[in-house]
Amino acid sequence: MIAAPISAQSGGDVARSYREVHEVEILKDFAELLSYPNSARDLDDITRAAEYIRDELLEVGVDSELLQLEGVPPIVYGELNVPGATRTLGIYVHYDGQPVDPSNWTHPPFEPTLYTAPIPQGGRELPMPDPGDSIDPAWRLYARSAGDDKAPIAALLPVLRAFRESGTQSTSNLILFFDGEEEAGSRNLPRYMETFKERLDPIDIWLFFDGPAHPSGRPQITFGVRGSMGMEVTVYGATRNLHSGHYGNWAPDTGVILSRLLVSMKDETGRVLVDGWYDTADLIGDEERAALAAMPAWDNQLKRELGIVRSEGEPESLPQRLMVPALNIRGITSGNTGALARNVIPNTAVAALGIRLVKGNEPEHLRQLIIDHIQREGFHVISEDPDMETRLRYPLIAKVTGGGGSRAARTSMSNPFAQSVMAAASVAADRAFGQGSLVVAPGMGGTLPITPFTEILQKPAIIVPVANHDNNQHAPDENLRIANLWYAIDLYAQLLTMPATIF
Amino acid sequence: MIAAPISAQSGGDVARSYREVHEVEILKDFAELLSYPNSARDLDDITRAAEYIRDELLEVGVDSELLQLEGVPPIVYGELNVPGATRTLGIYVHYDGQPVDPSNWTHPPFEPTLYTAPIPQGGRELPMPDPGDSIDPAWRLYARSAGDDKAPIAALLPVLRAFRESGTQSTSNLILFFDGEEEAGSRNLPRYMETFKERLDPIDIWLFFDGPAHPSGRPQITFGVRGSMGMEVTVYGATRNLHSGHYGNWAPDTGVILSRLLVSMKDETGRVLVDGWYDTADLIGDEERAALAAMPAWDNQLKRELGIVRSEGEPESLPQRLMVPALNIRGITSGNTGALARNVIPNTAVAALGIRLVKGNEPEHLRQLIIDHIQREGFHVISEDPDMETRLRYPLIAKVTGGGGSRAARTSMSNPFAQSVMAAASVAADRAFGQGSLVVAPGMGGTLPITPFTEILQKPAIIVPVANHDNNQHAPDENLRIANLWYAIDLYAQLLTMPATIF
Repeated sequence: MIAAPISAQSGGDVARSYREVHEVEILKDFAELLSYPNSARDLDDITRAAEYIRDELLEVGVDSELLQLEGVPPIVYGELNVPGATRTLGIYVHYDGQPVDPSNWTHPPFEPTLYTAPIPQGGRELPMPDPGDSIDPAWRLYARSAGDDKAPIAALLPVLRAFRESGTQSTSNLILFFDGEEEAGSRNLPRYMETFKERLDPIDIWLFFDGPAHPSGRPQITFGVRGSMGMEVTVYGATRNLHSGHYGNWAPDTGVILSRLLVSMKDETGRVLVDGWYDTADLIGDEERAALAAMPAWDNQLKRELGIVRSEGEPESLPQRLMVPALNIRGITSGNTGALARNVIPNTAVAALGIRLVKGNEPEHLRQLIIDHIQREGFHVISEDPDMETRLRYPLIAKVTGGGGSRAARTSMSNPFAQSVMAAASVAADRAFGQGSLVVAPGMGGTLPITPFTEILQKPAIIVPVANHDNNQHAPDENLRIANLWYAIDLYAQLLTMPATIF
Repeated sequence: MIAAPISAQSGGDVARSYREVHEVEILKDFAELLSYPNSARDLDDITRAAEYIRDELLEVGVDSELLQLEGVPPIVYGELNVPGATRTLGIYVHYDGQPVDPSNWTHPPFEPTLYTAPIPQGGRELPMPDPGDSIDPAWRLYARSAGDDKAPIAALLPVLRAFRESGTQSTSNLILFFDGEEEAGSRNLPRYMETFKERLDPIDIWLFFDGPAHPSGRPQITFGVRGSMGMEVTVYGATRNLHSGHYGNWAPDTGVILSRLLVSMKDETGRVLVDGWYDTADLIGDEERAALAAMPAWDNQLKRELGIVRSEGEPESLPQRLMVPALNIRGITSGNTGALARNVIPNTAVAALGIRLVKGNEPEHLRQLIIDHIQREGFHVISEDPDMETRLRYPLIAKVTGGGGSRAARTSMSNPFAQSVMAAASVAADRAFGQGSLVVAPGMGGTLPITPFTEILQKPAIIVPVANHDNNQHAPDENLRIANLWYAIDLYAQLLTMPATIF
């Protein structure tokens, strides 16, 4: 835990009072924001969402506009210059969301719906409240991007409005920079940064408003993210699906062939067996080790909540496991199961691999290690579907695609900006969730597009998440717990009024 | 090879001449028959198809009607009584087809489309021919059920028409019995047989017009079928999909867990590792062994055609491999791959298992062996999704569903009826494909609903397939090669005019 040298600022009081009076209004504004479809792949949708957010920012006094490179999602950009302020905070949020398959959602993903509790725990649907109704902070608002990552926008707007109405000043200049394609890999972020570098150069430190709280429900602050890379492996049987009666026991069984390859990559304890997998990960330092040791022992609780008996890598804890690169199966597809299952031996089996990198790992290097491994398992590795000549030459063939992806990043915990942000977050956490509730994590497991900030702009970056850990991020029935929205309001008010003396 | 003691009968000449004059008309009638959707699960569709076939049979002089148990697909039933005939052939065909996923087809599955050759081999689409056009027997007609199993209906109708027009008499009474739910497991066949047993009792031998030719392209005749059983195994991770960033390296990796289980079931050579798997299979006799030895050595050709280097169970041949029970993966589903892949650790992984039984195997026994195996691999086996208590008690949980299925059947090759049918088929094969072309197989790999005939009606059954082996049965782009339709006409003409002296 970080000591909290700063007492609560009046900014915090202002925001909290404003929120208590305007809870219904804030919730309804959030629901409106969530009603904008926001897959980065639909340029019309994402532009409509961007324009809405820009207009909302203008209304609370932020000098806002869309930065627009042709044919890609815009950046929602905003400036709030404070007379006399000597430092500038960069605030990163992404307003796009993961693609949705509405058939798996309880409600349409862009029709925000209120529940008394999580749906699987028996939550009941509620109508949106009327002015004057009281709101239970245990309620959940269900919609795509409720947790990842529109909640920060919904919390920042009322803070700015409260400050404006009360004449409260931020102690830093603010530059808002809202990404429109984080879930699609933030492919154009480096180009945006280079094109608009002059505007971003004044920023002293970046705050990433993204990610979930600690699984304990306690708020957290994080100094690093893992990198991410997706790959796909396809193995081949006959040139066509074969009737399982006429050819069963004779035709190559693609499901088993793929299974054998996947099993060769990971042992029963969760250790990745790809040669060299752990060799390039940076060792963590004393500060990170101390922070890991101070983190709550939450694994058993989390396992009870998720209904699992055994985690990968036991007895190492989840925070420890996030310090080494991960290899997971994101999906397997071969033939069909359930009502669509047919009596065939599928001619291919496909596995989508999810790789998470830690500091020190290069995506291309890990990709090559996986390819080397597949070759050592006896497969001829190709990058396109095999032609007949290839099929007839090699008994085992694997097509490997994907790669690219992003490196991990980590900001030193001894950075003076970091100290300041930790202190402000600690005050907000104490206020919202009780004394000493802030969890300080050296690294989070997820991936944010932090590398361009640290590598192109060369500025430190700290991740300040607000969403509940069980927000179903990236999955159907994504949701935000209302208490976490209230915490976000407390938190942002503290960050915007950090004393100028600290840095 | 079987010697052909009978010289070509006039029935064969009549049918062949008729076909040569009416090729375009026969092809168009076939296309019309194929245009009727025929999934057994759609009662309206299947009834329309049945009525159409019944009407076509009435037109060629068969006393035809629908046998109808309530709420299930009807049997198309027909009788052709021949004055003076002393024996009765039962002819089994199924007019239903495997369910279709039209998105995987080159053309809609119920819009029959003509090609010069198989599509993957560069076949070009052709318009349906006009009267007088000549037809290349290498052409293919694409549609669901082209090979499995409407071709026999399309061949039998012109034979009966030719006989009727020329005054040619069948040498046997005929009872036609066309099943409407073979692809759905012929679940009501026993009930139909018991309800209409009196009509079926006169039958001396059943001929099954179903299944594909030998992979060499040579026609074949077969004395047995494998049984079939489908099972499904689901393994469980957390109660919900987890974000692969936040939980990757820690959450149970369902894809790997399922893979490990599947790999435990089969070794690299294709040998099933489930304890007791091969113990209950009947050993084959001398006659079957001799027939197996006389079959063409076709594996290498088939492998070249299918683009594979190594078959399961090498160096045993495909016909030998069909004499032992098979275990195959029909499908695997976990999360998503391709464009739908997301950064999650899927909370389940599902495998559909396809089991093929040989004579001696009991479905329930093999099912239990698989369950025992899964338990030995450390899984707690259940039949419904686990509740929280179960999840928190067992580190490995597998839901096993499915089972049921059918036993295998085999008719003795020394049966006098069998001798007679072999002789007639041999003549037709000589005529259509050249001297000595008939392949005699002790057993085929596929499954036909033969057991109720041998077990309820207690009559021998012989399988007389006509479809090309590469008809994409059960898969998209199913097709029939026209030469195989012409062979079917020759074959049925011979079978209908077998000399009465043989039995």
